[in-house]
Amino acid sequence: MKALILFAHGARDPRWAAPFERLRELLRAQMPESPVELAFLELMSPRLPETVARLAEGACERIDVVPVFFGQGGHVLRDLPPMVDELRATYPGIDIRVAQAVGESPEVLAAIARYCIANSEAP
Amino acid sequence: MKALILFAHGARDPRWAAPFERLRELLRAQMPESPVELAFLELMSPRLPETVARLAEGACERIDVVPVFFGQGGHVLRDLPPMVDELRATYPGIDIRVAQAVGESPEVLAAIARYCIANSEAP
Repeated sequence: MKALILFAHGARDPRWAAPFERLRELLRAQMPESPVELAFLELMSPRLPETVARLAEGACERIDVVPVFFGQGGHVLRDLPPMVDELRATYPGIDIRVAQAVGESPEVLAAIARYCIANSEAP
Repeated sequence: MKALILFAHGARDPRWAAPFERLRELLRAQMPESPVELAFLELMSPRLPETVARLAEGACERIDVVPVFFGQGGHVLRDLPPMVDELRATYPGIDIRVAQAVGESPEVLAAIARYCIANSEAP
């Protein structure tokens, strides 16, 4: 079984989580055969190790971690890799992969551009 | 003349800015009649007041500020409004509007979902 983890920053304000939760629900509807979970870097729960531990209790063979960040800054390039290395060592039976941040996707940027243009064209 | 400001968080790592710069170039190509600029909340330049000041030197009548944030957390809901209020008081001739964060756009979330699914389906 493959699972997907949406990895986000986290914030003090609970409203921060809303779009990530909507994204998770969207993905659950579109890939009903795979668990789709959230994990936060800081300030919010669950954290990545917790989410991976829960998935490891199931028959999970592969986990794709998708950083829901625009930029590949320090969090994605420096904080995430050692966390993933440790998780790989703890769960050698699970193929844990890390995707590029969603901001690296030309299609995501194109969708943001369309949203900006729609705002600019509103009377 | 209308202008567009992409308002992003900023980070210590200069690589953070890359997707925002790509987004700006995409928008400049798609709306060549309007200035499209970046502004950062913290840690990176230019900041919002600086970008607005520069646009105000031109014949700018309206500025759409689009928060390139996923969540409407503290930065968008608490830090941004007083900055914008101050800018509106400084530049009463400019109609400064603030869009909802890009993570509020269903199309942006749908594009992120497609990116996640493509990652999960990769062999």
